[in-house]
Amino acid sequence: MKLSQIGELALLRHIRQRFKKPSPNIIVGIGDDAALLKPVNKNLLVTTDMMVEGVHFNLSFITPYQLGFKLVSVNVSDIYAMGGKPKFLLINIALDKNTEENIFDDFFSGITDAMELYGLFLVGGDLSASDKGMALSATLIGYTKRYIRRFGAKAGNRIYVTGNLGDSACGLELLRKIKSPVSLASSKRRAKGKEHRVKSKDTLLYALRSKLSAKGLKWIDVEPLLRRHLMPEARHPEKFISNATSMIDISDGLLIDLSRLCDESKVGAKIYAKKIPISSELKKVASHLRISPIKLALSGGEDYEMLFTAHPERKVKAIYIGDITESERVIVDISGREKKFSAEGYQHFGIQR
Amino acid sequence: MKLSQIGELALLRHIRQRFKKPSPNIIVGIGDDAALLKPVNKNLLVTTDMMVEGVHFNLSFITPYQLGFKLVSVNVSDIYAMGGKPKFLLINIALDKNTEENIFDDFFSGITDAMELYGLFLVGGDLSASDKGMALSATLIGYTKRYIRRFGAKAGNRIYVTGNLGDSACGLELLRKIKSPVSLASSKRRAKGKEHRVKSKDTLLYALRSKLSAKGLKWIDVEPLLRRHLMPEARHPEKFISNATSMIDISDGLLIDLSRLCDESKVGAKIYAKKIPISSELKKVASHLRISPIKLALSGGEDYEMLFTAHPERKVKAIYIGDITESERVIVDISGREKKFSAEGYQHFGIQR
Repeated sequence: MKLSQIGELALLRHIRQRFKKPSPNIIVGIGDDAALLKPVNKNLLVTTDMMVEGVHFNLSFITPYQLGFKLVSVNVSDIYAMGGKPKFLLINIALDKNTEENIFDDFFSGITDAMELYGLFLVGGDLSASDKGMALSATLIGYTKRYIRRFGAKAGNRIYVTGNLGDSACGLELLRKIKSPVSLASSKRRAKGKEHRVKSKDTLLYALRSKLSAKGLKWIDVEPLLRRHLMPEARHPEKFISNATSMIDISDGLLIDLSRLCDESKVGAKIYAKKIPISSELKKVASHLRISPIKLALSGGEDYEMLFTAHPERKVKAIYIGDITESERVIVDISGREKKFSAEGYQHFGIQR
Repeated sequence: MKLSQIGELALLRHIRQRFKKPSPNIIVGIGDDAALLKPVNKNLLVTTDMMVEGVHFNLSFITPYQLGFKLVSVNVSDIYAMGGKPKFLLINIALDKNTEENIFDDFFSGITDAMELYGLFLVGGDLSASDKGMALSATLIGYTKRYIRRFGAKAGNRIYVTGNLGDSACGLELLRKIKSPVSLASSKRRAKGKEHRVKSKDTLLYALRSKLSAKGLKWIDVEPLLRRHLMPEARHPEKFISNATSMIDISDGLLIDLSRLCDESKVGAKIYAKKIPISSELKKVASHLRISPIKLALSGGEDYEMLFTAHPERKVKAIYIGDITESERVIVDISGREKKFSAEGYQHFGIQR
């Protein structure tokens, strides 16, 4: 059934029913002019993000389920990057009135599964028609006593990342070859994930695996890269937080996000290409696609790992990739040569990757 | 200059510079992963709204300045409707990279003027390219100790509205005839409004006035209706608040919003057509356009007046339009006949006006 046959009020009732899970802090959730939350004696964190079809996502590459999941993760990552605990979510969605109901349902299943993963509550949002294409935005509210800013890095601090970089960008390159959405099984942590029910697509997945295999690519290498792009999970920074002097999440690419951190902290940075963590899957697949894995790791976006700095004497359970300097920003390449870097990476209205 | 020639980072710097007004409650504003606000010992209110080109607005009818102003007002109205004080704003904007810089500037001038009017601070948002057309969303955070819900109306309560209805819908009808954006002078309260500087458009305005005059319409009647549609001001409910048992803002039309209030409160309503407040301008212009003013007042959206209920013995400084009943929902027409009503009005994906 198409959304136009169901009507806005019925859709809203449906959403309200689905997300009526109670929280002791919610006085008024979905269904009034605004959400009303009890006061909490902690600093309040708020972040918002917009995702527009054709710019941030392409429904030929991503399933509505994955899109919903990703929209939540992206916002959670921003709250985590401040050292906070995300809690209350608001979702705006504008979509064509000829959209089929199952697309709408799958999108909200992705939202629901991500909410479960991160322990969130939906408290509001807006539902509307769109003239053409889908537009989404989410707002996430969190709380924290102690916070970590982009500002705070000092010369002599070490620079760390929390995991492999470039996987997501490589996943996107793969999708550009595959040219169709790929259903991914839910991870163990999302055991109730709705993606498993798309049985009819299993044949497609089988065909895809054969196709990849014919090209010498193994599903076991491809799947983690696709997952990093389609269903990224925000990195909880809890175990680093007591040591971090500054922090940012890597959403637009290491170089652009490190530049932002340096801009805010008014410092420079020296990073070592050979220290940038690259997954074995990325190495294999990138060489197959004839792309430089290090290039993807430096300039590819959407990895949602944390980038942070800490005093050199502190023990840090993360990957050391370089040092904060007074002012110059350089990357030492594999052969030991120093090159200056600037805010490269994805920039709307400007430099493209 | 086009936005693509300026680049995202330069635009963000520009916005950050423009909105760096300090507030003692903002620890971190624009420019980090999330905004960080000091705890306040009051209930927190959050609302969000999305506006999509071609659905919620048409740039052939509204100037970017008015659009920015309206986006803020719409959200302020939601916070007011809970009895709250709006405070912190986040804006998401997706627009074509070939957009001219002055459109972007004018949009933010509208945002700024509305922020000044309501005493708001911009603390975050997202800026991105769009494939086609403009998409906007805003999130507004407010605080309140006492709150008023849609739930709470009791049989025997009186129903009130805070001002004339139908003006905005009539303004929209006028714009459909005028078929071009109309610059409006800033009101006294927005003395620094940027609309005055568009001198080049004064000739257009003069031509428009002549055209209206030839049709027998006076600018003095037309202007307030256009203003209600293009630059609505949210109605501060302060003077009613101690008496209200339930409240909602009229964004989608009196009948649909009264139905919502009745649904939540599980009550009925009886309203009197002859008591619905209609401006003299609406009467004149609607008769000219051959539209029923009462129809616009009942089903037209975007008036942003408050609709609330109160005990009958309370003295209320608002317009009494009917009574809360046990369950039936009727409107008594001018000739005294009772008609049932349901949630008519604008509904996305469904019934159109």
